[in-house]
Amino acid sequence: MEGSSLIEDVLVTPLAIISTPGGCVMHAMKGSSVGYSGFGEAYFSQIEYGTIRAWKRHKEMVLNLTVPVGKIRFVLFDDRSVSNRQFQEVIISEDHYCRLTVPPMIWVGFQGMHKGNSMLLNIANIEHSPSEIDRKDVDSIEFNWGYSD
Amino acid sequence: MEGSSLIEDVLVTPLAIISTPGGCVMHAMKGSSVGYSGFGEAYFSQIEYGTIRAWKRHKEMVLNLTVPVGKIRFVLFDDRSVSNRQFQEVIISEDHYCRLTVPPMIWVGFQGMHKGNSMLLNIANIEHSPSEIDRKDVDSIEFNWGYSD
Repeated sequence: MEGSSLIEDVLVTPLAIISTPGGCVMHAMKGSSVGYSGFGEAYFSQIEYGTIRAWKRHKEMVLNLTVPVGKIRFVLFDDRSVSNRQFQEVIISEDHYCRLTVPPMIWVGFQGMHKGNSMLLNIANIEHSPSEIDRKDVDSIEFNWGYSD
Repeated sequence: MEGSSLIEDVLVTPLAIISTPGGCVMHAMKGSSVGYSGFGEAYFSQIEYGTIRAWKRHKEMVLNLTVPVGKIRFVLFDDRSVSNRQFQEVIISEDHYCRLTVPPMIWVGFQGMHKGNSMLLNIANIEHSPSEIDRKDVDSIEFNWGYSD
């Protein structure tokens, strides 16, 4: 998936997991990282197996998403250009550990793909503000979420 | 524990966990948060049950530690003043969900207190650099780590 972003300004950046006795260190983001555009807020979201959270679009926030626990499927939908509407799917887990950078104005949905809770960390360039978020019902953008792992 | 920091410049800041259907949102840090002193790097450390990682002292890094998974005991030891050497212990889990801010020049150790892996997130003001880290063997600062939960 790395280096093959379909949607302009979306980045998928591989991250290191460093094994040490008694537990590992997992990189998330540096101030010098590709995709970093300032620090506004960091927060976690838990998601249960099979649960879908869709769709949300940020008008200003740049998302930088990692998944330190479990496995999450992110689905991005770009309708910025009517002539070039497209989806991009990125699955992040320990086995494919990376950071997903999402620019503003992209519709984002995600789904828990791990039998148990999964967790994402979002390192965002601005603080949470309901006024910069657009929402749509899950069914309003056609996508086959399925349940396959 | 909140508001009762024993060591100067150490902060224990309660954080919100917001329940939503299918998973919760857990705050970690905002750019406007108490204890924020710039963004250098964010990384996760996993730690197994009972495992102790001690002692490490950062000469420049300010640590901002949260525990989104499991339960971790942090032990801080301040020997900046010979006449006023002291320990501070902070246990962080979902049940006591907070952010621990540690200024430079404090010895830090931590231990996994959850039967399974625990995980911390450190949001640090500088990027990781081995040259600003001092280390001591676990036995070189006397502390009863025990194993009790």
